Amino acid sequence: MNHEPLHDRALGERAVLAETAPLVLASGARLERFPLAYKTYGRLDAARSNVILVAHALSGDQVVAGPHPLTGRRGWWDRLVGPGRILDTDRYFVLCANVPGGCMGSVGPGSIDPETGRPYGPDFPGLTIADMVRAEALLLDHLGIEDVFLVIGGSMGGMQALEWVRLFPGRVFAAAAFAVGARHSAQQIALHAIGRQAILNDPDYQDGRYYGTGRAPVGGLAVARMLAHLSYRSPQELEARFGRALQDRTAPSFGFGIDYQVESYLAHHGHRFVERFDPLSYLVITKAMDHFDLAPDGDVTAVFRGRETPLMLAAYDTDWLYPPAETAALAAALEAAGLAVDFAVHEALTGHDSFLLEVPSADRALKRFVESCAARRGLA
Amino acid sequence: MNHEPLHDRALGERAVLAETAPLVLASGARLERFPLAYKTYGRLDAARSNVILVAHALSGDQVVAGPHPLTGRRGWWDRLVGPGRILDTDRYFVLCANVPGGCMGSVGPGSIDPETGRPYGPDFPGLTIADMVRAEALLLDHLGIEDVFLVIGGSMGGMQALEWVRLFPGRVFAAAAFAVGARHSAQQIALHAIGRQAILNDPDYQDGRYYGTGRAPVGGLAVARMLAHLSYRSPQELEARFGRALQDRTAPSFGFGIDYQVESYLAHHGHRFVERFDPLSYLVITKAMDHFDLAPDGDVTAVFRGRETPLMLAAYDTDWLYPPAETAALAAALEAAGLAVDFAVHEALTGHDSFLLEVPSADRALKRFVESCAARRGLA
Repeated sequence: MNHEPLHDRALGERAVLAETAPLVLASGARLERFPLAYKTYGRLDAARSNVILVAHALSGDQVVAGPHPLTGRRGWWDRLVGPGRILDTDRYFVLCANVPGGCMGSVGPGSIDPETGRPYGPDFPGLTIADMVRAEALLLDHLGIEDVFLVIGGSMGGMQALEWVRLFPGRVFAAAAFAVGARHSAQQIALHAIGRQAILNDPDYQDGRYYGTGRAPVGGLAVARMLAHLSYRSPQELEARFGRALQDRTAPSFGFGIDYQVESYLAHHGHRFVERFDPLSYLVITKAMDHFDLAPDGDVTAVFRGRETPLMLAAYDTDWLYPPAETAALAAALEAAGLAVDFAVHEALTGHDSFLLEVPSADRALKRFVESCAARRGLA
Repeated sequence: MNHEPLHDRALGERAVLAETAPLVLASGARLERFPLAYKTYGRLDAARSNVILVAHALSGDQVVAGPHPLTGRRGWWDRLVGPGRILDTDRYFVLCANVPGGCMGSVGPGSIDPETGRPYGPDFPGLTIADMVRAEALLLDHLGIEDVFLVIGGSMGGMQALEWVRLFPGRVFAAAAFAVGARHSAQQIALHAIGRQAILNDPDYQDGRYYGTGRAPVGGLAVARMLAHLSYRSPQELEARFGRALQDRTAPSFGFGIDYQVESYLAHHGHRFVERFDPLSYLVITKAMDHFDLAPDGDVTAVFRGRETPLMLAAYDTDWLYPPAETAALAAALEAAGLAVDFAVHEALTGHDSFLLEVPSADRALKRFVESCAARRGLA
């Protein structure tokens, strides 16, 4: 792939935000007149009351449904978003923005830094999940949308949904978060740190100034993605799908390359990812996730006291990256704050990625939650 | 470190094996007149009946106890091996060999290939755990030791102990294996494959021909080690030790480097490892582990039927790399084959590495097992 900025590609709409006042980030850095790319599905109703804000995960983007112009594959929640689907585009106006820091048209390391006239590269300011949410709030302002009916996402998208409830409770009628806890744990940070080190080690990283050189740290990014992908699935699934089956051979090679199908599977996911993702965006976004902590002093209940947003939380029994116990603890803390929380642990063999896949019990829970919230909102 | 062969360093004794007939490896390759480095503790009794063969794990070596000449730290099982300790060197003759493929004096990628007069490098023949055990059996022949009282190890050392019982049941009176199952699973293979890819990606790997170039793929090896080390500990331990504590700072840097203590901890282990380990040995040995499968057709019971070696198996509740369920399944299969198996899952926060650390219930179980076997062997 071309590892240059993707800003010119057709990936939906693009708004220029913070035209009159900068967005001040958690780091203290300021973003002025920055683009945020987004895609919409369905129609905004006259009362502007039917907005569903979908938040994407680390490797996702604003192409929630339909064919992706870069990959040709269906959007990551195509299963949920469309006419007659659970997030029914005949009824709802579904909106998803590429997060700042990303590489699908929003401001990110590949964007031109107005102060230098060159791409930010490694000087792109570090972000938090709350910063992403503040940027999304500016997008709503830009679109003339006061509040959303539902904010929903899984993994990093779930973190954004939770930050929406924390930061802008008046702008969110309901929220749903899948496969996420109240903060990034030591284990979650550690897994990201290993992937980042693989990228930083790659000589094509060139201190982060690789745009325009014709080289990018894709080997390091592929290793990072192999590890991430492994963490997104479950050992049980890998055992059932691959076990110790050999890849295109009847005996081990006794070399250092691929012998087993599971190795080929991971290598494939590593290679495929680097075709569509910018290594610097990977660094920026994983760091934002690592900084995620709804309550640095540990008291989630105190932070959310007074909030009234009905919340759905879902976890998956084989998710070892964001273990169900962490989501359960979050649910308990939010309930203690007085929020109505619909929480369940769903059975699925597919680990963390289950939030992207069809899990009948989770789909039923989401459908019930959306319908009951819609009824209360008068969106029947 | 000097990433050249370590064969000249003083790491115990060194035997030259297979002088009259080659060792034929599982791959079909042959090793002739090859060195195996080993270290002994205690004294061989007159009847040569008091031998404890200790088998080391992936990152271990023959320096089981006492100060390590390369690192200055104590040997990896110093806690267990010594006068009055559970593997009591006042009573037993403890022997540990560096595995073939290793970099502490035994034949490995850094050894001179007799056919070319140059180091094997990437042409070193691929190995299996059974090959390692066959080499150790040649060492016993060389030392005039017919059989051992106990073969014992954890992780890859446990794999060797199990292969000893499978291949040479008449030469093993008792065996103990910690934190291991009957075969390497898809998940275990996948974790190794990611580490190998990090090494293979490193431009200093130079197609494996890095000896003598002054460069070695230490960056890749450090990433591999960071991942391995993470897999050796438990999320629970990391949370308790580090949580989200920052490293030498009061706020995140908002850069891409180390912010959190857990990142610093992993980086430290990565850096430290490359000071003493050869990247090619890492490739050879992880592949050998991935090929480990006591019963490729799935029937462990059939493979071990007729064996009479009393066996101790231990697993640790927080070990997510070699989960207790895999050790439990192995124990059940061996019991079904008629073996007396002493199996328990021990509580320890320290994950897979618990086999290296003091876990009182596991130490008690080992002490009981050794004493009861010694009584039966007449070694009181």
